[in-house]
Amino acid sequence: MSMNTFGHLFRVTTWGESHGPALGATVDGVPPGVRVDAEALQHWLDRRKPGTSKYTTQRQEPDAVEILSGTFEGQSTGTPIQLMIRNTDQRSKDYGDIVEKFRPGHADITYWQKYGIRDYRGGGRSSARETAARVAAGGIARAALAQLAPEVEIQGYMTQIGPHGITGPRDMAEIENNPFWVPSAETAAQWASYLDGLRKSGNSVGAIIEVVARNVPAGLGAPIYAKLDTDLAAAMMSINAVKGVEIGEGMAAAMLTGEENADEIFMGNDGKPAFSSNHAGGILGGISTGQDIVVRFAVKPTSSILKTRQTITKSGQPTEIITKGRHDPCVGIRAVPVGEAMMACVVLDHLLLHRGQIGAGTRGKIA
Amino acid sequence: MSMNTFGHLFRVTTWGESHGPALGATVDGVPPGVRVDAEALQHWLDRRKPGTSKYTTQRQEPDAVEILSGTFEGQSTGTPIQLMIRNTDQRSKDYGDIVEKFRPGHADITYWQKYGIRDYRGGGRSSARETAARVAAGGIARAALAQLAPEVEIQGYMTQIGPHGITGPRDMAEIENNPFWVPSAETAAQWASYLDGLRKSGNSVGAIIEVVARNVPAGLGAPIYAKLDTDLAAAMMSINAVKGVEIGEGMAAAMLTGEENADEIFMGNDGKPAFSSNHAGGILGGISTGQDIVVRFAVKPTSSILKTRQTITKSGQPTEIITKGRHDPCVGIRAVPVGEAMMACVVLDHLLLHRGQIGAGTRGKIA
Amino acid sequence: MSMNTFGHLFRVTTWGESHGPALGATVDGVPPGVRVDAEALQHWLDRRKPGTSKYTTQRQEPDAVEILSGTFEGQSTGTPIQLMIRNTDQRSKDYGDIVEKFRPGHADITYWQKYGIRDYRGGGRSSARETAARVAAGGIARAALAQLAPEVEIQGYMTQIGPHGITGPRDMAEIENNPFWVPSAETAAQWASYLDGLRKSGNSVGAIIEVVARNVPAGLGAPIYAKLDTDLAAAMMSINAVKGVEIGEGMAAAMLTGEENADEIFMGNDGKPAFSSNHAGGILGGISTGQDIVVRFAVKPTSSILKTRQTITKSGQPTEIITKGRHDPCVGIRAVPVGEAMMACVVLDHLLLHRGQIGAGTRGKIA
Amino acid sequence: MSMNTFGHLFRVTTWGESHGPALGATVDGVPPGVRVDAEALQHWLDRRKPGTSKYTTQRQEPDAVEILSGTFEGQSTGTPIQLMIRNTDQRSKDYGDIVEKFRPGHADITYWQKYGIRDYRGGGRSSARETAARVAAGGIARAALAQLAPEVEIQGYMTQIGPHGITGPRDMAEIENNPFWVPSAETAAQWASYLDGLRKSGNSVGAIIEVVARNVPAGLGAPIYAKLDTDLAAAMMSINAVKGVEIGEGMAAAMLTGEENADEIFMGNDGKPAFSSNHAGGILGGISTGQDIVVRFAVKPTSSILKTRQTITKSGQPTEIITKGRHDPCVGIRAVPVGEAMMACVVLDHLLLHRGQIGAGTRGKIA
Repeated sequence: MSMNTFGHLFRVTTWGESHGPALGATVDGVPPGVRVDAEALQHWLDRRKPGTSKYTTQRQEPDAVEILSGTFEGQSTGTPIQLMIRNTDQRSKDYGDIVEKFRPGHADITYWQKYGIRDYRGGGRSSARETAARVAAGGIARAALAQLAPEVEIQGYMTQIGPHGITGPRDMAEIENNPFWVPSAETAAQWASYLDGLRKSGNSVGAIIEVVARNVPAGLGAPIYAKLDTDLAAAMMSINAVKGVEIGEGMAAAMLTGEENADEIFMGNDGKPAFSSNHAGGILGGISTGQDIVVRFAVKPTSSILKTRQTITKSGQPTEIITKGRHDPCVGIRAVPVGEAMMACVVLDHLLLHRGQIGAGTRGKIA
Repeated sequence: MSMNTFGHLFRVTTWGESHGPALGATVDGVPPGVRVDAEALQHWLDRRKPGTSKYTTQRQEPDAVEILSGTFEGQSTGTPIQLMIRNTDQRSKDYGDIVEKFRPGHADITYWQKYGIRDYRGGGRSSARETAARVAAGGIARAALAQLAPEVEIQGYMTQIGPHGITGPRDMAEIENNPFWVPSAETAAQWASYLDGLRKSGNSVGAIIEVVARNVPAGLGAPIYAKLDTDLAAAMMSINAVKGVEIGEGMAAAMLTGEENADEIFMGNDGKPAFSSNHAGGILGGISTGQDIVVRFAVKPTSSILKTRQTITKSGQPTEIITKGRHDPCVGIRAVPVGEAMMACVVLDHLLLHRGQIGAGTRGKIA
Repeated sequence: MSMNTFGHLFRVTTWGESHGPALGATVDGVPPGVRVDAEALQHWLDRRKPGTSKYTTQRQEPDAVEILSGTFEGQSTGTPIQLMIRNTDQRSKDYGDIVEKFRPGHADITYWQKYGIRDYRGGGRSSARETAARVAAGGIARAALAQLAPEVEIQGYMTQIGPHGITGPRDMAEIENNPFWVPSAETAAQWASYLDGLRKSGNSVGAIIEVVARNVPAGLGAPIYAKLDTDLAAAMMSINAVKGVEIGEGMAAAMLTGEENADEIFMGNDGKPAFSSNHAGGILGGISTGQDIVVRFAVKPTSSILKTRQTITKSGQPTEIITKGRHDPCVGIRAVPVGEAMMACVVLDHLLLHRGQIGAGTRGKIA
Repeated sequence: MSMNTFGHLFRVTTWGESHGPALGATVDGVPPGVRVDAEALQHWLDRRKPGTSKYTTQRQEPDAVEILSGTFEGQSTGTPIQLMIRNTDQRSKDYGDIVEKFRPGHADITYWQKYGIRDYRGGGRSSARETAARVAAGGIARAALAQLAPEVEIQGYMTQIGPHGITGPRDMAEIENNPFWVPSAETAAQWASYLDGLRKSGNSVGAIIEVVARNVPAGLGAPIYAKLDTDLAAAMMSINAVKGVEIGEGMAAAMLTGEENADEIFMGNDGKPAFSSNHAGGILGGISTGQDIVVRFAVKPTSSILKTRQTITKSGQPTEIITKGRHDPCVGIRAVPVGEAMMACVVLDHLLLHRGQIGAGTRGKIA
């Protein structure tokens, strides 16, 4: 039973509420000898941190991570690594309407219906702040991958915001140059303009994020319920506000014929199998092919908006609510590093799992 | 580590290959006192059975299920229920090309790369035949739900086949009247015509299936990685050939504004919270709201087609392959009962889990 | 949640009742390429089979195992192996008293209290017949060990029966020469005489079984709750009628001083660490040292005896019961192969786990 | 895979090393609405705290617990509770011999062999200090039991120290009156004298601890591998230095005949089944009978003693070691509250599990 845990051998349990003393991740199954330091983890946390552009919430949270266990002289020892991020401003204050009213689109009402008690401060456990712990854990996964499979590269970026996709050709070099992690300077400018208008009107919008893992060895994954794509779907769907997950061709696979969808196989120049296309998103039968692993997920628009909405109180009375505060006009933006972190965790987990699954090292070589 | 198992408390482990002696499901965590008989399970298996229309494979498999354990005098005892389906035709025969060549779009190459050994007969473990075991297990889940939460209804249907969606209004009464389980007689006729052409040309096509669970109690699900939507995404993505999963608005949520996406809340006539719309697909923060749970998934076109495709042999030589045989032109059709089965398993699992999670029965009542 | 499953990566789920159609084990996580055949498994099952001497039950059960999945051309494929043993005589008959009365020392009353339904025929799920499935699964584990770590030897034997321990020195060569698997011909003769008397009087007696695993590599096990000794304790305590488990010195460790208990360390002639003694039973901090792994467990006397005992009926009425039938006077005898099977499963599981846990292969070499 | 986690629904993951910044427990699956405060947890931690008598280590560790998440206004919310205990003195200092030499009886050598890296400071992860986290988690379990099953009482005490058992009749009222938690004032005096001598000679000794859970409802536990006794055996064996675990009659069951061992059944005055004796230790077929649950475990003598012992260095050179420092002459003493904590966790876990397992509430009533 793993209510707040994911992973098979590399197991991450996140804990903490947005306005409690702290939040963090208990990371078990880290191989020994991985170089881990707080500064390297901080690099990834800073990408997710709010307030880095006008397109994310203007709250100031340093999100400084502390390593409480599991390392010795800068290396993992094979024991659980505890990562803690103190909430810097968790003092009691006036939470106004949300104490008594349920915000539409939030988990307020379902937590109440399930538990009969709820930490309403900033969404409590259901706050997107929980994803800071995932990003920290993902930093551990990246550090382990850097040693065990240094060729693996993981990169996330946005491909859609509201009605706007990417204009013109993709230029991956542009991803780090704009606040949307979109691989197109031209598109970034268009999105900036679109989002400015939306933000001023107090509205919000959804987005699509794509995460790619390159150079993942063939053979990761397992039939039938620990498939690589099954675990990726679960990992991404578990992120706040995600409503859809696609592998490779995704939902559009429904529109294709078998002739169009077949990724034909030939031998690459490197002596490994290669494919004429990648409709499969790098996964066949739940197992990696060696091609790029391609995952996409859709994030719904931020539910906290400056628009009056109908709702009810805890006692069932009809009322209205406007969610004031400093909210992200598009939470999808900050979901990019979160998606990357989940990808890193899943790939590392299956890399470790693969080594435990395989027998006498006689795995199938082609040619 | 649950490579061939899914579920938390209601745990299903499927086993078996398409051409081995048998396949089945080991179902653990069935509450005691559930009326279970082979005939009732057979009802669900017959829906998935091949050869029921010209739009599915013409193979003849009776798919007769045998209950080997876990029941006494027609009721579950709380111990594991073993469900076995004998493969009626698993004799050795000439498997032709597929012994040495990898079929594009199939798991042939990845199983080989991972394991170095592979049961090539009919796809072995990666065959869609595995889903017969899921449907049998889903029958157990349905039987348990019928006693523990008889108000729950689960229904699957197709909404898209290749380029064709549903024409005209949906008529749920039509679902059982056509071979596509599509809620529209007019659409069924159009699809029949389209699929006839496709089948004759030896091609195949993808599809989208929607599964709805009605009257699921509010409060099922759990933060953060055992969310109801996380488990549904994993369940559906684990089905053969599935490339995308959506909850509620799904990928289209990216296109909406927060104003459009908000499901406003009011009190229903039954004294329970109600909503102005269901963009959320019945799930907020991973927990059921009491609205319809709505899941969609896309199935890629059957990879076995009567078209010549480039591939390689086990020894890495370039070659061509045509996959002859009696294949489904659209495997999505038979995925409908499979999706229903997975929904039943997940809903039951979370119902049981919910009872274990909740404390002194003080769950939050509204009004 | 693994109610009927044990193991981390090598996962065994047993199913079935003593008088249902069949029982068996679903074995997941078997490495690919392991040579597996029904005859080899049968060898282990025959050791546990009843009726092989007058000191075990005189029932005749062939216990023939059938492999339903997971192998291809005599080798494991990495997919679940389903092992089924048909119950040859499960027809309905008169079960007499036990339908309405609870047999003291049996699980009759607790299954009833828990589930409110119970397969009373021969103990149902709580029958020691379930251990046939364990022995079959243990045969798979042994086959895998034979390829992955052929130096590992697993051997079980009895060390105590009622008041009688082993007389004289142990002679391991004698183990296979007597019906008690006791390493002493002289002791075997004494026990035979003792047990003859006990059997004739309709009484039964307990026993202690010791299982040793030799040449297990150092480094297997894991802190803190997946320790090798933790898993062995759970494995042995899960066997029917077991009431105590010991590692190395066991309960007697309480009587020792630190000076007496210290296994001093030196370098062996093989260049590996060696120890002056083995109070630890081959495990320190939950991890194997390379010494013999030594586990002991106590089996209580068979509860079914030809002696009148006070009990109650399902409706709470006081009554008496005598359990007639062909029962083992000492179930401990047939527990020897079961203990061996559990040891094989745990050692293999931790061997696989170890490979998944270890990082860059830099494990600590001494000298 | 739960290397540092135990429990099914109530899941405790401990983390931390003896000389790292902190250690603690991530407690998932706590039912909502449980009153939890740091002071109540501190009560249990203070029982385990060192330095409370001259018979435990003289180190001074306040072991103050901090609740970092999972509660709101003094009550659990159903989300993970993070419990942190800062190590007050973890500064780097001279660790002398143990950096290079392996201490006999400690996990030094096995951690090195497994991981190739080891936090040698105070034993690192293998230190008994880890049990502070268990005691804190056990405090949460006790708080939950106090609300869900207030009749349950859990009590641990020592029954043996080296060669000395309990003299005279047991007087449970004496348990809290002596440093050994032994139910006999006379015995406490004898043990004090014995241990004084041992302590002065720099030696140490083992012990046996018994833990009883009274008024546990009948029906907790589950076949076959999540049996109540299986989980208790694993829980106790996972405690540092434990070498044997017994349920009820334990190892001595081997010496009994079936006639002696049978706990006859009658109806108690309270209308529930009662038993003439409790050889079974309150568990039949892995399920609680309603009688006292009785578990015993043996703790080996402290391995750190002021006696010269032979050992080797990391490079395999023979050498000698004396482990100086302020060590417990009998670690068994401080294992009493740890055993209680594990019992509380297991009983709560099975209480929650039972509610999820049971069907329509039709559990078997007697009479």
